Amino acid sequence: MLSHNTYLTRAQSNAGILQRQEPVVYEAEQSVRPAVLSQPQRDAYRENGFLLLPELFSQEEVQGLFTEMQHMRKEFAHAGRAEVIAEPGSGEVRSIFNVHRLNSLFSRLVRDPRVLNVARDILGSEVYIHQSRINYKPGFQGKEFYWHSDFETWHSEDGMPAMRALSCSILLTDNNEHNGPLMLIPGSHRHFISCQGETPEENYKKSLKKQEIGVPDEVLLRYLADLGGITSCKGKAGSVVFFDCNTMHGSNGNISPYPRSNVFFVYNSIDNQLGAPRDGLKPRPEYIAAREDVEALTPQAL
Amino acid sequence: MLSHNTYLTRAQSNAGILQRQEPVVYEAEQSVRPAVLSQPQRDAYRENGFLLLPELFSQEEVQGLFTEMQHMRKEFAHAGRAEVIAEPGSGEVRSIFNVHRLNSLFSRLVRDPRVLNVARDILGSEVYIHQSRINYKPGFQGKEFYWHSDFETWHSEDGMPAMRALSCSILLTDNNEHNGPLMLIPGSHRHFISCQGETPEENYKKSLKKQEIGVPDEVLLRYLADLGGITSCKGKAGSVVFFDCNTMHGSNGNISPYPRSNVFFVYNSIDNQLGAPRDGLKPRPEYIAAREDVEALTPQAL
Repeated sequence: MLSHNTYLTRAQSNAGILQRQEPVVYEAEQSVRPAVLSQPQRDAYRENGFLLLPELFSQEEVQGLFTEMQHMRKEFAHAGRAEVIAEPGSGEVRSIFNVHRLNSLFSRLVRDPRVLNVARDILGSEVYIHQSRINYKPGFQGKEFYWHSDFETWHSEDGMPAMRALSCSILLTDNNEHNGPLMLIPGSHRHFISCQGETPEENYKKSLKKQEIGVPDEVLLRYLADLGGITSCKGKAGSVVFFDCNTMHGSNGNISPYPRSNVFFVYNSIDNQLGAPRDGLKPRPEYIAAREDVEALTPQAL
Repeated sequence: MLSHNTYLTRAQSNAGILQRQEPVVYEAEQSVRPAVLSQPQRDAYRENGFLLLPELFSQEEVQGLFTEMQHMRKEFAHAGRAEVIAEPGSGEVRSIFNVHRLNSLFSRLVRDPRVLNVARDILGSEVYIHQSRINYKPGFQGKEFYWHSDFETWHSEDGMPAMRALSCSILLTDNNEHNGPLMLIPGSHRHFISCQGETPEENYKKSLKKQEIGVPDEVLLRYLADLGGITSCKGKAGSVVFFDCNTMHGSNGNISPYPRSNVFFVYNSIDNQLGAPRDGLKPRPEYIAAREDVEALTPQAL
């Protein structure tokens, strides 16, 4: 286990760049059978910090998931639920959190071997869901999401000890260069960018709309992009992108007429469960960062 | 000459779609010699409403233009000049207007035969500059520019009689899928999208930052994009895109570390000079819409 202070961030004076300490692809424990990825896929993930698997889900499955997502959107739009995040400006539904607990279809989806076994394979252990959400990113007025490392937030605000988690984004609409696809900086997962500024209490209430704390320095972002370039995750609906918890990513806005929707899970190693947040912060709500009833997921076809 | 009322727009009740009345590529008058475009290029422009000519200017020329642009940016940043438009939010310089009159290099650039003769060829007449500007679109925080037809504004607010003008954008940085390139809807120039809402006086003071009047309806935008698709103008610095005054276009924001800068001229046919603005509006300032000392440009190498 890493020391809690390996990755200092959000002190007033320490914007900087640190080397990653942990592996990217973990050696599998005995109990975790599947090596579902090929060696070139594992190597690519280790090298780039992400992997795009085209059309892992069929168009029929995508249709079912998309319909369910639209139902949830209608159901939750005016229900005053904390799990619903609105678009800045328009007030449209931007995201709904905790969908793997709120909805039986998404609850089954996180257990589907096509995604779950990739997470177990890369993280080399049993895994559980740290966070889940659906993102709508509507057409015409979908807003940008600025560059960030998820781990920087999860480490600070959730007390996630180590870089042993990954995100899995299942595309529910076609993603193309015009509708604000996820952009990743290959290789950025090898560097921890510490950020300036102290975290205020209940920062998540603002940061899920627009992040203002935990924002990486422009000079360092430019450095990472000059080193590794930028890759946009374009693909047909049903494609899946897996990316390391420390891969720098963001997305431009979307004025195209076409929404850019996805469902998004964070798998965390069962050996990497949350501790206390940094700097005496109160833990974030359960629907953003799971602490209760955490147990390893068992693969089960959708 | 078209009737002044051919393209009704900005009345309260008339969002709608009208067929274009004018040609796209005009037959050349006797006095205008050059057919500088090939027949396939003319056909593509007529069909799509735009034409991208890769690397029309050399890297050395681009370097000179880019340096001049940076000089202007510094010189004008805090000069309180009306020609300077700030980014919404950050207050950084977004655009400087009227550069063909304010700066001798840009004054020569508009006369360069590589661009001027294309304009004369397409518009089939002598031409002059209706508007010019440099656009910086900085990295990290460049904001989107929503879909619009330039002609819709120029017809309403400047009294431009007919669709016989084109824009010429010279890329001064590489434009790629990540830094918010110009997006065009092929074929959209054949349809006039009239917009709802009346124009307030001095609308340009807001609209150059963020357009709120003359905004096309979402259903019609979707219709145009479903018909024609969307094309991003990607290319090396020095490439030039020419597009019809009525081609629907816009751009997403730019969170990438790389600026997306260009210099932008509007060539208007000398036979299409401005009349009175619609609805009794006051003419916009000379630096946005030229009325004084208008004369045909003579080609002269940069």
